[in-house]
Amino acid sequence: MTYCVAISVDAGICFIADSRTNAGVDNVSTYSKMHIFGVDGERQMVVLSAGNLATTQGVISQLKKDIKMGAGRHLLNMPHLTDAADYLGDVSVAQQSKHTGGGANYEASFILGGQIVGQNPNAYLIYPQGNHITTSADTPFLQIGESKYGKPILDRILSLDSTLETAALCGLVSMDSTIRSNLTVGPPIEVLIYERDSFTADRYYRFEESSEYLRALSRSWDVKLKEAFSGLPPIAWSANWDEVGSRQR
Amino acid sequence: MTYCVAISVDAGICFIADSRTNAGVDNVSTYSKMHIFGVDGERQMVVLSAGNLATTQGVISQLKKDIKMGAGRHLLNMPHLTDAADYLGDVSVAQQSKHTGGGANYEASFILGGQIVGQNPNAYLIYPQGNHITTSADTPFLQIGESKYGKPILDRILSLDSTLETAALCGLVSMDSTIRSNLTVGPPIEVLIYERDSFTADRYYRFEESSEYLRALSRSWDVKLKEAFSGLPPIAWSANWDEVGSRQR
Repeated sequence: MTYCVAISVDAGICFIADSRTNAGVDNVSTYSKMHIFGVDGERQMVVLSAGNLATTQGVISQLKKDIKMGAGRHLLNMPHLTDAADYLGDVSVAQQSKHTGGGANYEASFILGGQIVGQNPNAYLIYPQGNHITTSADTPFLQIGESKYGKPILDRILSLDSTLETAALCGLVSMDSTIRSNLTVGPPIEVLIYERDSFTADRYYRFEESSEYLRALSRSWDVKLKEAFSGLPPIAWSANWDEVGSRQR
Repeated sequence: MTYCVAISVDAGICFIADSRTNAGVDNVSTYSKMHIFGVDGERQMVVLSAGNLATTQGVISQLKKDIKMGAGRHLLNMPHLTDAADYLGDVSVAQQSKHTGGGANYEASFILGGQIVGQNPNAYLIYPQGNHITTSADTPFLQIGESKYGKPILDRILSLDSTLETAALCGLVSMDSTIRSNLTVGPPIEVLIYERDSFTADRYYRFEESSEYLRALSRSWDVKLKEAFSGLPPIAWSANWDEVGSRQR
């Protein structure tokens, strides 16, 4: 499994990805799911991947090959980010269609985000079918992989005016909740912060399993969450009491 | 969809269920998913249901009919709770096998919990296949339906020595997170608190959509969670900085 999230706020985009892949619980490996494409000063794009590892590797390899070979369409010559998302969707669908059978699931999902000079930053979630969605003011984030455990905190904290630091911290807390509930999501955690109009991808960070900060964050969130819980109003039992009779259905 | 949880602690068992069912988002109804069977002073059992509504209604109806008709096996004559769980599994499998085709999913899951005099309280999750699992000291809860959004808070707060009040409050917070993230889970919320060795099911509560307490709890948890988040240690960027070179994969 995998958990990747992209948070698109006014100040830019924060990308976060775990690095664990597994084919069964007895075959766990570490692979980066964050891939960076760009030309400094002109365009920067980040691709996050989830799903069948053979498919995602095939897609990323094709993206690189198309750039190298100067194919008709590639990530560095698409006029708009939506065109880049269309192109990535086409590559993904083509790659998935190469393999069938064996009871395996060959599907893959991607997040593509970044900025092309003269345009606004943007992020897209590309479904296995090749179509895509983007973020909104109410939902300034996109998730792929094991997305449910970590969604409630994103829902509550994030808005378009969140800083990139808040976005990154919220994404790490979301990742921490997911790691705690699903064994197949795990460190190293990769973080890339793209600042609007910077056209560089140099704010890249990697938190290893041994990261003192990740552990401190996890402990701290545990303590804070328990404090938050203990401060809740006690249940108003009497107001919600039902006569015994009413439960006899 | 549905979200039901049973929390089994030393002091007893707390059962919580939402009441929303849907066949598509344009066909949403309210049905109770909590069913109480028992003989005061002798045995009490609570059944929570999730899955295909025709299946769950068929199963509950069969459970009642078997009691009324004095069938060979019914919930009120099983010697142990595990026997009751086996019986419920058999009824569920038989009910599911009656209908096939049409592209529908006829599966259903159940939680059965309670106590028979002379034995300890216990709770079981009964899978669509009829087999079942129970709780443990490390995982003192069982969930059916849309379980992921609400799991992180249960993982962090609950232990065997939690009070029944803490268990109920934690279950309501877990329910609140689920309702916020999944439209097909919603109030009224039913809560039943079974106190060990009480052999009665009279602590039954129902929180309507208009419940002032539910709204206050939701607002309060929102505020407390944001406070908890704002108290986290800022990200130690420098310690996790990777040279630009190392990201060129």
